[in-house]
Order: sequence, then C-alpha cells, then structure tokens
Amino acid sequence: MPIITASIETEVELRVQEFTIEGRNAVIEALRSGKTIDKLYIQEGLQDGPIMTLKREAKKRDIMVKYVTRERLDQLSSTGKHQGTIAYIAAYEYAEVSDMLSLAEQKGEPPFLVLLDGIEDPHNLGAIIRTANLAGAHGVIIPKNRAVGLTATVARTSAGALNYTPVARVTNLSKTIEDLKKEGLWFVCADMGGEEMYKLNLTGPIGLVIGNEGEGVSRLVKEKCDFIASIPMKGDIDSLNASVAAGVIAYEIVRQGLTQ
Amino acid sequence: MPIITASIETEVELRVQEFTIEGRNAVIEALRSGKTIDKLYIQEGLQDGPIMTLKREAKKRDIMVKYVTRERLDQLSSTGKHQGTIAYIAAYEYAEVSDMLSLAEQKGEPPFLVLLDGIEDPHNLGAIIRTANLAGAHGVIIPKNRAVGLTATVARTSAGALNYTPVARVTNLSKTIEDLKKEGLWFVCADMGGEEMYKLNLTGPIGLVIGNEGEGVSRLVKEKCDFIASIPMKGDIDSLNASVAAGVIAYEIVRQGLTQ
Repeated sequence: MPIITASIETEVELRVQEFTIEGRNAVIEALRSGKTIDKLYIQEGLQDGPIMTLKREAKKRDIMVKYVTRERLDQLSSTGKHQGTIAYIAAYEYAEVSDMLSLAEQKGEPPFLVLLDGIEDPHNLGAIIRTANLAGAHGVIIPKNRAVGLTATVARTSAGALNYTPVARVTNLSKTIEDLKKEGLWFVCADMGGEEMYKLNLTGPIGLVIGNEGEGVSRLVKEKCDFIASIPMKGDIDSLNASVAAGVIAYEIVRQGLTQ
Repeated sequence: MPIITASIETEVELRVQEFTIEGRNAVIEALRSGKTIDKLYIQEGLQDGPIMTLKREAKKRDIMVKYVTRERLDQLSSTGKHQGTIAYIAAYEYAEVSDMLSLAEQKGEPPFLVLLDGIEDPHNLGAIIRTANLAGAHGVIIPKNRAVGLTATVARTSAGALNYTPVARVTNLSKTIEDLKKEGLWFVCADMGGEEMYKLNLTGPIGLVIGNEGEGVSRLVKEKCDFIASIPMKGDIDSLNASVAAGVIAYEIVRQGLTQ
C-alpha cells in the first residue's frame, strides 16, 4: 500500500517526514494533483508500468528525476515502504513576482526584492527569507534550476518568515530582472570588486541579488545589474557566508532608507 | 582493536570523521594526552574496567559524558568498532583572551572582540568566526559550558577563518567582560528593546556580545554591557538568525570605523 505522510500546513515547526510522499501510486497522485515537487527519487533500473507512468508524468511537468540505488531509498524512507520512489514536496506554495509588487504598493513603499542566484544550502535560503522579512523586503525570488526550493528545512530555518514573505520561483533570473527594470527597479548585486556598499545610493525601488555559495553571482545575471556592491573585507579569507552577506547588505539598504 | 581516525590538522576542508576517536583504549589515551574533547559518548549500562577508567578520566578533566544506546553509537560510528565509546575532539586549539589584545596592539587597532553568550549551533559559530575575521575582529570568545566548541563542523563552516581568528573559551563570560573593561573596552550587546544601532557610537575598543539562538543574551551578561544595540525590525517575526544578526551589527561597527 502506498503511504502518504505529507501534509502541507503552514506551521513553523515542520518535520521533514511530513513533506515526503512514498510509494508509486501516492507519488503519481501527488504529481497529477499539481503539488510542487522539489525532488523526485526513483530506484535505478525499474521499468514496470507504474514507474514508467511516473517518469512520463514527471517529464510532462518538467520535474527532474534523480535515479538512486535501492539502498539509498531505504535510507531516505521513513515508512520502509517506498516501492522504488520517494517524492519531496515543497513545504510551501510559491508566489508570483507580481504579488510582491502589489504588496509593496499596498504598503506604500518602494519595492524591495531579494533575488537569489542559485543558493543551494537550505539553511542559507531559510535564513535569507528570515532576513528579508525583518529588513522589510516584499519578496524573495529564486531560480527553478540548480537551487534549493521551499523544503521543510527551509521553512524551519526561516523561523516563520515563510508565512509572511512571498517566495517566487522563476525560470530565468536575467529575464525577471529585465522585466522588473521596466517596473522601475534598480538592481544591485553583491560581489567582490564592486563599489564599497556604503558609497552607493541604495534607496528607492531596489532588487538585491545574492549569488551562489561557491561561485557568486553568474555572469549573465551580473551583467543585468546596475551596480556591484562590495562589503569591505578586512580579514584573511575570501567571503562571508551567503546568508550573512545578504543580511549585511540588506541592512545597509535599511539604514540608507531610514537616514534618507 | 581501537581505531583512531583523528588528526588535528589546520586544514580548511575537514571531514567530521577526522575528529572522532573510537574504541576504549584510544579514547582513554586521547583523554590522558590532554586533547580537547568536545563530546564524549559512552554506551549506557557498561561497567567494565576500561569504561570505569574512562569515566574517571573524564570526570578528572571536567568533561561531560553523554550516555547513549548501543544503536546510537552504531549510527555515529564511522569504523563500526566503537567498543562502547566515541569521543569528538576539538578541531582546533583554543587561544587566550590576552592573545587577542596583543593581536590588536600589533596591528595598531583598537581591540574589537566578539563574545558569544551560548551559541549552540555549530553552523552559527562557524559563520560568526568567518564574519569576525572579515569584519576585522581580533578574536571570538565563547563560554565553556552550554555552548558548542570548535568542532569539525565549526571549522568547515568558518571557511578557513579559524586558521586566522583566535577563539578563546572562558569559564565565566561576565567575569571576562569585567576584566576587559579594565583594559578599556566598551561592551555592546545585541538584543531587542535597546537603542537603534545606527544611533549608537560603536567606535573605539569594543566588545560585541551576541546571545544564544533561542534565549538571547543572559541577564547577568546583559547587565555588564554598556549599551544594548537593536537591529531595526520591520517584519512580522521576532529575530534574525544569530549569525546574521552578528554580521549586521559587526558591519555597523565596521561602517562607523570607516566613516569616523
């Protein structure tokens, strides 16, 4: 029998198990009902009917499948009855970028968005959503590929911020930046070799772009940005943790807004 | 045979296994040789000679023992031969507070220290050491009890900063603050309900106190501080992640130092 241990509740303390679905029929059902799947694991080498249906449904919805050994699935399984497949469903529903602009308008504030160019660590994503909430940002935008989505760990690490701060997932971050520029936003990306952030004017409608943990902001995205803001580095190592860097620059935006 | 998988090298990329010692004789030997043990696990119910020796040696050195089931030890074991005990040894050696003041003097800078009142999450401690390094702090001070020490995870999360920024461990943080006040340092603690940080003068010889993830700065430590600095909170939730908060205030100290 397929076992469903999933329940999409917007609670702060969520256990990972609550967001996994195990068993062929349960996973096929979840796909068909339109649940947002973050990761789909299928056991290597399986070719039977339900598994082929599963692969077809996943392909239709542009969901990446990871093929793993049976032993790996046994480890991941919380029910012991995965039948060759486990799906991790998104802990929260994604918002649209337009929702964020509406939110800013409702509040009578210039839009302040945080764009993440490929954050991979769920703790970083959660901490950044938490920071975005407290720094007064109207939303967080993440890419669909090569980035962590709204998993249970992200929800937990966000300390409840995910209940308030909308997160949108887009196919092409450069394109989103172009579209938002038409709405009047300026874009600043956090990277080395730019202008010291204290010397930049970071007021008005702004998009703050934070890069991947290892590789920083990608070239295509960086080219779309109006400024590169650098955090002064006085030490011996290369860079701050991504969520700390996001916090430091987001609060420079807050400071400039307050002292304007 | 006892298996030793420990090697205290100051490398940036360290695997957790490199800092565990498994097996009775190996753990007793590590204790006797004075290695800094962060955690000592002993299997519940064991009473034989070597285990009793181990308990006695641990007690002599004021090392907390955690009693766990055999199944838990099997999970933690990387060798499969733990013989009822696993020790996690500190990844790095601790410095003295006086070393930090000397470092500041050598650099001709006013001392800037970061004091952590009970950070429990190794990722937070690592990220804060990383931030301390880049913000130009001369050291990080942590308490001996109820706080995470310099484990392999901390070393890894610090991204190499642990090779440069000294970390001291003290018995009584309030007492350390008193001693450092005699050396001319002012203390600012990060907490809610204080003065907005942008309005405080955070220049000169300074100690920045960051509280525990859940409970903030303890009353006794807070009473020793000269100021309470608050990060403006514009959102719906309570507080920033501890390492993000540390980064935001540390960089306000950097900003004030640069624009002085």
